[in-house]
Amino acid sequence: MNGLGRFFGVGVGPGDPELLTLKALRVLQESPVICMPKKGEHSRSYALSIVSSYLDPARQELLELVFPMKRDLDLLPTYWRAATDEIIVRLRAGRDVAFITEGDPLLFGTFIYVYDLLRQAEPSVAIEIVPGVSSVNASAASALLPLATTSDRLAIVPASYALEELSDILQRFDTVVLLKVNDVFDRVLDILESLSLTDRAVYVRRCTSPQEEIVRDVRTLRGQKLDYLSQVIVRK
Amino acid sequence: MNGLGRFFGVGVGPGDPELLTLKALRVLQESPVICMPKKGEHSRSYALSIVSSYLDPARQELLELVFPMKRDLDLLPTYWRAATDEIIVRLRAGRDVAFITEGDPLLFGTFIYVYDLLRQAEPSVAIEIVPGVSSVNASAASALLPLATTSDRLAIVPASYALEELSDILQRFDTVVLLKVNDVFDRVLDILESLSLTDRAVYVRRCTSPQEEIVRDVRTLRGQKLDYLSQVIVRK
Repeated sequence: MNGLGRFFGVGVGPGDPELLTLKALRVLQESPVICMPKKGEHSRSYALSIVSSYLDPARQELLELVFPMKRDLDLLPTYWRAATDEIIVRLRAGRDVAFITEGDPLLFGTFIYVYDLLRQAEPSVAIEIVPGVSSVNASAASALLPLATTSDRLAIVPASYALEELSDILQRFDTVVLLKVNDVFDRVLDILESLSLTDRAVYVRRCTSPQEEIVRDVRTLRGQKLDYLSQVIVRK
Repeated sequence: MNGLGRFFGVGVGPGDPELLTLKALRVLQESPVICMPKKGEHSRSYALSIVSSYLDPARQELLELVFPMKRDLDLLPTYWRAATDEIIVRLRAGRDVAFITEGDPLLFGTFIYVYDLLRQAEPSVAIEIVPGVSSVNASAASALLPLATTSDRLAIVPASYALEELSDILQRFDTVVLLKVNDVFDRVLDILESLSLTDRAVYVRRCTSPQEEIVRDVRTLRGQKLDYLSQVIVRK
């Protein structure tokens, strides 16, 4: 015992509150401080929307921390450090803090940056990560589409950062899950068409939530404004 | 309503019974038939060991189906068909059947083969897949190792089927998760050493179960007999 609260990274699953694990539910209900990322001062945390029915604001502090959806790598660490400072204040007061992320904390979660900074600032803090159902597995389940069988290879890539290699990755892997497709969808579609893979692609938006949408003819999405929680599964 | 029972593919998570989702628990407790894969006539189903405390053999049929851990692609479909026939008998009697798999049903699960055969044999059966926490996400959580941040690319490959391409995949991706490493571990180690990546690899066995083992100096495992539920995460 070092007097510090414990820090939990808790995956709350893809969207359906029933896809929380029993462990995530227990940790969330036992933690006096729940902290969560949101995109802007006036937006609502998606992770919070998944778990809000399980929390009790009368006895728990719900700490929303702003992480802008920007690619400005000079600016973002300022937000990560501010968030980490807020968390450290509470850990030093001996309070446990659960940081919630949609999906799984270690798969493209904002949690990772805070976790790295926290370990540097307070190396003695006890940290536990509660894995969650990722949106990759959940999208496949919603679309009834296998991700991989026996000898298959699976790649998971953020489309907006991998456009140049995408053609090569699509040719080498049996299944490719493209995250962060919303800003580059039409270019992804061009690449799929050039490889005759358009018919092998399925678009999934906000899987397992009330806003879930599955589109099997992805050509119909060209030119549309897409949700940022969108992905495309290409299964050859 | 077509008189048929419903078929559920239920991911029961990586090993810790507390990593079941609330939905998996509900479906398992509501289903009169629970069926599960096991390796041989006299072995015990790993998926069953995860959920056995939640089941009630007095009112539920626990149907263990044998799927040998062989690569004989002439022989295996015989077992898949036999299993599918057992399931269809129960669905036609109007009973719901839940097929449990460790991890996630659509990520390297035996479930997929049965699911494909079942859809062919009974196209009108209602099928629902309950995604689970995969061993990939859970191993990363146990090892406190990020799988991917913002622009990273993640590959998940069965090592025993990808040895020839492994060097190339390791060079191109930020994180590579190697499944099915037990039979080819020494050769994987040779490849890691040739790329100077041995220090970036972590071995995880039966993550989140009482038999969990994490080895950070993977060189010490050379020549050892390894568990079949083993994986290696290489994070550059």
